[in-house]
Amino acid sequence: MVVECWKILCKLSIMTGLEVSRLLLGLNCGRPLETIIPPESAKALSSKHDFDLQAFRFSADNEFLREPRVVRVGLIQNSIAIPTTAPFSDQKKAIFEKLRPIIDAAGASEPVDGESTEFLQEFARKYNMVIVNPILERDINHGETIWNTAVIIGNHGNIIGKHRKVNENHIPRVGDFNESTYYMEGNTGHPVFETAYGKIAVNICYGRHHPLNWLAFGLNGAEIVFNPSATVGELSEPMWPIEARNAAIANSYFVGSINRVGTEIFPNPFTSGDGKPQHPDFGHFYGSSHFSAPDASCTPSLSRYKDGLLISDMDLNLCRQLKDKWGFRMTARYELYADMFARYLKPDFEPQLISDPLLHKKSS
Amino acid sequence: MVVECWKILCKLSIMTGLEVSRLLLGLNCGRPLETIIPPESAKALSSKHDFDLQAFRFSADNEFLREPRVVRVGLIQNSIAIPTTAPFSDQKKAIFEKLRPIIDAAGASEPVDGESTEFLQEFARKYNMVIVNPILERDINHGETIWNTAVIIGNHGNIIGKHRKVNENHIPRVGDFNESTYYMEGNTGHPVFETAYGKIAVNICYGRHHPLNWLAFGLNGAEIVFNPSATVGELSEPMWPIEARNAAIANSYFVGSINRVGTEIFPNPFTSGDGKPQHPDFGHFYGSSHFSAPDASCTPSLSRYKDGLLISDMDLNLCRQLKDKWGFRMTARYELYADMFARYLKPDFEPQLISDPLLHKKSS
Repeated sequence: MVVECWKILCKLSIMTGLEVSRLLLGLNCGRPLETIIPPESAKALSSKHDFDLQAFRFSADNEFLREPRVVRVGLIQNSIAIPTTAPFSDQKKAIFEKLRPIIDAAGASEPVDGESTEFLQEFARKYNMVIVNPILERDINHGETIWNTAVIIGNHGNIIGKHRKVNENHIPRVGDFNESTYYMEGNTGHPVFETAYGKIAVNICYGRHHPLNWLAFGLNGAEIVFNPSATVGELSEPMWPIEARNAAIANSYFVGSINRVGTEIFPNPFTSGDGKPQHPDFGHFYGSSHFSAPDASCTPSLSRYKDGLLISDMDLNLCRQLKDKWGFRMTARYELYADMFARYLKPDFEPQLISDPLLHKKSS
Repeated sequence: MVVECWKILCKLSIMTGLEVSRLLLGLNCGRPLETIIPPESAKALSSKHDFDLQAFRFSADNEFLREPRVVRVGLIQNSIAIPTTAPFSDQKKAIFEKLRPIIDAAGASEPVDGESTEFLQEFARKYNMVIVNPILERDINHGETIWNTAVIIGNHGNIIGKHRKVNENHIPRVGDFNESTYYMEGNTGHPVFETAYGKIAVNICYGRHHPLNWLAFGLNGAEIVFNPSATVGELSEPMWPIEARNAAIANSYFVGSINRVGTEIFPNPFTSGDGKPQHPDFGHFYGSSHFSAPDASCTPSLSRYKDGLLISDMDLNLCRQLKDKWGFRMTARYELYADMFARYLKPDFEPQLISDPLLHKKSS
């Protein structure tokens, strides 16, 4: 199995462990979050390499039976580094170089006494991070099939597992994004990965439009779901602030939304059969990465135009606290929907439609 | 079957037909909507009776095979009219009197040449309206059971059908809203009602928190789903602007969100076993009724404190246009979720969890 990495780093997300003295603000339902001051070294990197840097904190109530479970999570959004016409290997190297200082800034956000011990993989081991790395996977063992995959790297640098984008069970067929022509529907279910810092899952890109997809990760126990995306303003920007927040609310978990940033010009203008004139780009990838919490609060978004790193501390206890408060799992009645889907999936399904018997009555 | 009406009118929604010359603005994705100037008679009623009055218009693209299907829809939010200690019949009468001028204003929003013909039921026939009327239903034929029901009144004043709040398949057990103690889970499925002006459904109150519930109305063909609610600020306000908009986006239909308004004091303070001190009210019902469209656009909200009427014209063709643009139905893969629910519902269900084998490795 060869792992290629071009698509990927535009969608990098990072999670790193940290003991943080808890706040006692209670649930910050929609209230502004507390801002974290990043360390000077991180601020220096962001100004030297010109990327957006923001940091916040989600709090939860104290519990009798569990200690706070505060983790620090980072989202990186970035543009490509050199033109789309450059050789693939050069593009890949250039993106690595661009990301290095941003990941260093994420690592610098760990306290000086952080437990970075082993060094199995460059950044994961250097900073004791879990890294979520969406890639384009070439599956030699299955006819060289291409999958849209996310690789989960543990905080010791080990690969915990990979996830063939379950959300790419749902492959976009919209506008210029005819992605079913270049990878396969996923076949790995809706896996949740138990890491040193919490249970995480990845709902990639277009999968965010499917509430069932978000739900499945929730039923499998996710505490944080990352949504690495590459989407453009004209297509999805009005939906962007809504869907991730709704998923966090409905499933009582945190969501980390990451979007590519920048406008990429191709040498040959193209069309996609949607009646639009030919154009040399997909439109503007609008960045605006952000975190959503299960209590409906959320962070501000990163820049719409610049590379950026968004850091947030979050007490994962908030997930169960919201489950207990709202009881969505206990009121869900999934059996009703299992039955409805079974009926809906039959070719002869007829909707439950009650027509007004006077529908075609003439008015006198 | 006796229909009682106290709970109800705080949740009234109205739909009335109207031929409107179409706009050619195209899809207004998140852009400000065009404002409609209500007729003078409606404005006069709103100032005389001191209720909020707003009116907007959602447009859709022209189609080759279908004429525009513009309907005018109204949402009414209101407070109670006399103290909660007054006799039930007096409270009911008082709410009727309070609502009369607001419904007249909704009717006045029909053009002078409107086709009001028959007079089977006061307002429906007077204004050629379809009226959605959520009630508390006493079911004599089933042991005097109480159901949380919505009655759909056709534009000829006829009762098209009733719907025992499918969404109250999902009965809240949160804070002071222990509603499972005073009505039954619905047993009428997820019906969609085909009216003279479009296919409508009702997702009442707490049902808005369940994406599956919204989905089921969509699978049954709803073009507008009303969400009459009675919810308070401290509990749900941060979620209010998110959930309805997400439902409209995910299911390619319009959503009309109605919330009760006002703070209601009861003579005997109460608690609900959630650790809070006793209190004589549920909190503030924050109104903020609004419309959401399938293209992610939405109207401003009605007042947080005053009774109000929100009118909107909407071209229902927008629903199919968004389905064709985004293809959510074609990429949904419901079979995966039917299978997952079947597994999840078993007592021995085990989540798809992949643990880091180094999870408990000591750092050296």
